[in-house]
Amino acid sequence: MAKKEKLSVEPYKGVRDFYPPEYATLSYIFNTWRAAVEKAGYVEYEASILEPSELYKAKGAENEEMVNEQTYTFVDRGGRETTLRPEMTPTVARMVAAKRRELGFPLRYYSIPNVFRYERPQRGRLREHWQLNVDLFGSHSPYADSEIIGVAQAIMRAFGATEKDFCLKVGSRTFINSLIADVNLSEENGKALLALLDRRAKIPAEEFDDKLRELGIAKEKLSGDAPKDIATMIKEFSDEGLNNIVWDPSIVRGFAYYTGMVFEVFDMHPDNNRALFGGGRYDNLTAMFDDEPITGVGFGMGDVTMRDFLEVRGLVPAYVPPTQLYIAVTAPELAAQAQTLAGELRKQGVNVAIDFGDKKLGDQIKTASKHGIPYSLVVGDNELSSGKFVVRNLASGEETKLDKANLANFFLQK
Amino acid sequence: MAKKEKLSVEPYKGVRDFYPPEYATLSYIFNTWRAAVEKAGYVEYEASILEPSELYKAKGAENEEMVNEQTYTFVDRGGRETTLRPEMTPTVARMVAAKRRELGFPLRYYSIPNVFRYERPQRGRLREHWQLNVDLFGSHSPYADSEIIGVAQAIMRAFGATEKDFCLKVGSRTFINSLIADVNLSEENGKALLALLDRRAKIPAEEFDDKLRELGIAKEKLSGDAPKDIATMIKEFSDEGLNNIVWDPSIVRGFAYYTGMVFEVFDMHPDNNRALFGGGRYDNLTAMFDDEPITGVGFGMGDVTMRDFLEVRGLVPAYVPPTQLYIAVTAPELAAQAQTLAGELRKQGVNVAIDFGDKKLGDQIKTASKHGIPYSLVVGDNELSSGKFVVRNLASGEETKLDKANLANFFLQK
Repeated sequence: MAKKEKLSVEPYKGVRDFYPPEYATLSYIFNTWRAAVEKAGYVEYEASILEPSELYKAKGAENEEMVNEQTYTFVDRGGRETTLRPEMTPTVARMVAAKRRELGFPLRYYSIPNVFRYERPQRGRLREHWQLNVDLFGSHSPYADSEIIGVAQAIMRAFGATEKDFCLKVGSRTFINSLIADVNLSEENGKALLALLDRRAKIPAEEFDDKLRELGIAKEKLSGDAPKDIATMIKEFSDEGLNNIVWDPSIVRGFAYYTGMVFEVFDMHPDNNRALFGGGRYDNLTAMFDDEPITGVGFGMGDVTMRDFLEVRGLVPAYVPPTQLYIAVTAPELAAQAQTLAGELRKQGVNVAIDFGDKKLGDQIKTASKHGIPYSLVVGDNELSSGKFVVRNLASGEETKLDKANLANFFLQK
Repeated sequence: MAKKEKLSVEPYKGVRDFYPPEYATLSYIFNTWRAAVEKAGYVEYEASILEPSELYKAKGAENEEMVNEQTYTFVDRGGRETTLRPEMTPTVARMVAAKRRELGFPLRYYSIPNVFRYERPQRGRLREHWQLNVDLFGSHSPYADSEIIGVAQAIMRAFGATEKDFCLKVGSRTFINSLIADVNLSEENGKALLALLDRRAKIPAEEFDDKLRELGIAKEKLSGDAPKDIATMIKEFSDEGLNNIVWDPSIVRGFAYYTGMVFEVFDMHPDNNRALFGGGRYDNLTAMFDDEPITGVGFGMGDVTMRDFLEVRGLVPAYVPPTQLYIAVTAPELAAQAQTLAGELRKQGVNVAIDFGDKKLGDQIKTASKHGIPYSLVVGDNELSSGKFVVRNLASGEETKLDKANLANFFLQK
């Protein structure tokens, strides 16, 4: 038989394999997100990653270009142009529009979808990542805006971040739109101003000033006080002791659909002073489905950005598998007894893995250590006849001799 | 402005939208799966849905046809042939082969990936579904086989199913291969026998008998005793009180990679007497990556089959959102006070949503009911001045008047 060429074990370019330790970190991020947003009354939804391409092209020619060049788009066998979702907002807008009569507003929705972008892989910008999406639909109240800011703040704190670690900069599309109207900017120059503001943090201050002057806008226009709603919100947060929320009129967000308050959360670390995530208010996301716009306010944040933020600060918990105990055996014939003991402990609520005795005892224990399992126990003839077992802490080496009847309790009390 | 044609709110053909009640069912299935397999020492991994197509074509021409006709396969912008994973087994084999030196065996892995098949949508066979994959790598012990059967059994019981609801039929590829050798079947007829056995439950008994005779196999050959390992395993389960595991030599499983014990779990419901899921032992899944095969035994089960099984028996829990309390307000000006009260309750561990008072009080309470939130509370001038609040059970109408200080406790004691 001719020797076949072997396949590569690498994943597809720009995506990640999650072995259990990496998956545990992802899972920690997901569960922390979930607990924080559910506290504020948000409920989880999901959808398929497959969507009709027109969902993304609908917003105009600019989007068509994005769909054609930056997304995974293909024609399926039934001739349908199909896209792997690059973001969740069009999907949730579709779902809310579909059931607007039944859902009940204000509606608090969240999801943790994986989203796809066809782009050159680089730090923090993979072809697939997960993204928490939080949206509050159906209320124009400024307290809906402040709730969303509060949820963003609560998420960061749920991970152990403090005021020294991050700040929230709040801007306003309404404010910028008034400015554009005041100085009579053309539509084109209005867009140029939004784009310039969006890049402010990424370009030298002089370049920013020059470009602003070219557009005929005095810099002082950008240093005025916050609109009343936003000033009130910032004061109310400050009264509660949250002082890391500031007015910054240059925050505008890239997406065209924002219409009111917009915000970005910034990393305060000197080596990583960049926007972590953001969001804002939009007034007509469902307009492409019907003629009754539904207002909303929300934000999205990615798993990679979150993990980088946590890693720099040592805030990612050490990996501990769900398995609490590893049972080794002195001989393969004792695998049945190990299985019976494991079964009894599992019934009492302990997570137990067993070895089948294919290897020497020392190597069995090494397997437990490789897997990060905290405790081991050996089943041999002596243990079975005496009914006493030695539980060994694999990190410290500490040993505890216990009657079989007390084994489960040892773990349940941890 | 010309009126644009509106987009459809339907999802892509053959996939599902999960509004919170449907997502809660999916999530219940996932979490029940997780708890059951982690009890037996399995740890969770994940990978991307994007894989190089060669991963699925590697197993020969038969697979190439499957990849071309039944999967989502496209050429990416970098010229790479890419497939949305139709199953998880090749991915986990790739991951295990990549780190075989570091991982430590026996290795217990599980995952709950979404997998994709391009096929005509029909009951229980969507284009995207989620599938629990459980694998035990690196041990030839018959106790590894019995562990996997035990895990399948434990999962079913974790959902509340009993011996009346399902049974496990165990077959053996070794047994069938001996039979094929005994009667000197050609390779082609050997494959025909496997295919015939795999279809046994789906065709009339007479047709089965005829086809078996055509292959020159006496029916008695299929009614012999179980091989020793399997007989021992069945007896050991029976000793533990598990009597729904039986030897059935016609269980062979479709996939080519099985080499030893194989099993299927059958629904015992008279209207739905079909295989729910199954698995078995394979000895060389990693052979396409290198020359050192790693043995394994495992199974996969889908979310749709599981949900159908549970629904028929009324075993799906009723939907209850994570939100415990809805705060309504007598006027929009009181939204700030509602927010403050909600903030205090959240700090004490209660999940609270608020209304911003955009609608009448009665309509606010209707919103809470629509969302399935169990309790409501009204914030008005009287409540704020007295510091006493009435908590209303929205299902029973029962009301409880509480001091602000006792509010959180009311929910935490539920």
